[in-house]
Amino acid sequence: MMKVYDFEGFPNPARVRIALKEKGLFDSVEFVSINVPEGEHRKAAFREKNPSATVPVLELEDGTTIAECSAITEYLDQLTGEPQLTGKTPKERAVIAMMQRRAEAGLFDAVGTYFHHATPGLGAELETYQCAEWGRHQKTRAEATMRYLDGVLADQPYIAGKDFSVADITVYTGLGFADFAGVDIPDGCENLAHWRAKMDSRPSIAN
Amino acid sequence: MMKVYDFEGFPNPARVRIALKEKGLFDSVEFVSINVPEGEHRKAAFREKNPSATVPVLELEDGTTIAECSAITEYLDQLTGEPQLTGKTPKERAVIAMMQRRAEAGLFDAVGTYFHHATPGLGAELETYQCAEWGRHQKTRAEATMRYLDGVLADQPYIAGKDFSVADITVYTGLGFADFAGVDIPDGCENLAHWRAKMDSRPSIAN
Repeated sequence: MMKVYDFEGFPNPARVRIALKEKGLFDSVEFVSINVPEGEHRKAAFREKNPSATVPVLELEDGTTIAECSAITEYLDQLTGEPQLTGKTPKERAVIAMMQRRAEAGLFDAVGTYFHHATPGLGAELETYQCAEWGRHQKTRAEATMRYLDGVLADQPYIAGKDFSVADITVYTGLGFADFAGVDIPDGCENLAHWRAKMDSRPSIAN
Repeated sequence: MMKVYDFEGFPNPARVRIALKEKGLFDSVEFVSINVPEGEHRKAAFREKNPSATVPVLELEDGTTIAECSAITEYLDQLTGEPQLTGKTPKERAVIAMMQRRAEAGLFDAVGTYFHHATPGLGAELETYQCAEWGRHQKTRAEATMRYLDGVLADQPYIAGKDFSVADITVYTGLGFADFAGVDIPDGCENLAHWRAKMDSRPSIAN
């Protein structure tokens, strides 16, 4: 059985948990909890699985370990059929990859940098280096990305086009992370708010 | 004919140019030069093609624009056969995506952040916001990633395993960017140096 090393309730783990539910694979993996608030992800035993010291990690039955949410989703997406989270045609795949990258760098990771650098983050023991100025700058970037995504959603129902994709998962969990970190959606982003309400009721998210 | 909007000699454009040569597609695209040193990538006309204001951008024959090197490579890789830059099996694809992300975040983008924030970068007119402390921190991250990649290459011939992949392109161009920005490969990284010499003679790079 495949294993997922993660910590329930945290933003990156949520990305893979939603993807697993979308693909009908949630019950096909064994979850192993890594106590991130206590720093277990930085210990040698876990670094053997992921030298980048981040969760989640997917461990295949042959022992291969896959880190990075995009890479894990890429794998899961090819195990079963609909919905195809990373696209079918070359063009769909490229557009989704582009929007996934924009959502990740401009929103999800920007919020993460704000949280870990410009707020107490996970606390003094884990936040051993902070650059508050950069963190605050990334908050501005996250807000700008929210406005950009609001514009995208004026013309299409999902982040990467007419179909739900991994980019929707990244934006949705990025907004949840933003709530937690105290980064508000700018006023007037009604398309984004409407899309978010639609996501809230999606079975992989609501259940 | 597809178009590539870029600026020859710059690091991200180099990533896609190498991918095009690997796939035998270099002569199948029209290059349109965007004068990045003069800020053309930030002007409204180019932002219509890529709101993130970065080069390169691939424009398909139907007018669809694809930004972000990983997304462009994903598209090109599916147009023709060998070498398969993003992998064949789900496991290969996932491992390559993971290593691509590590190479991008830990090396290529870290060097870029150092260059744009802790050095004069592209000059005062273009570098309108700099956070030098963060830039210096990313230099340290780039050096740590070089050491990590050196360890990876102790056990396998290419960055993501036994075959050349897009992750090799990202690391190779990342090291070129590092040279330019003044980030040295740490002493003792002999596997990385050996791999780099092998890349130097690869036709897509040497020619």
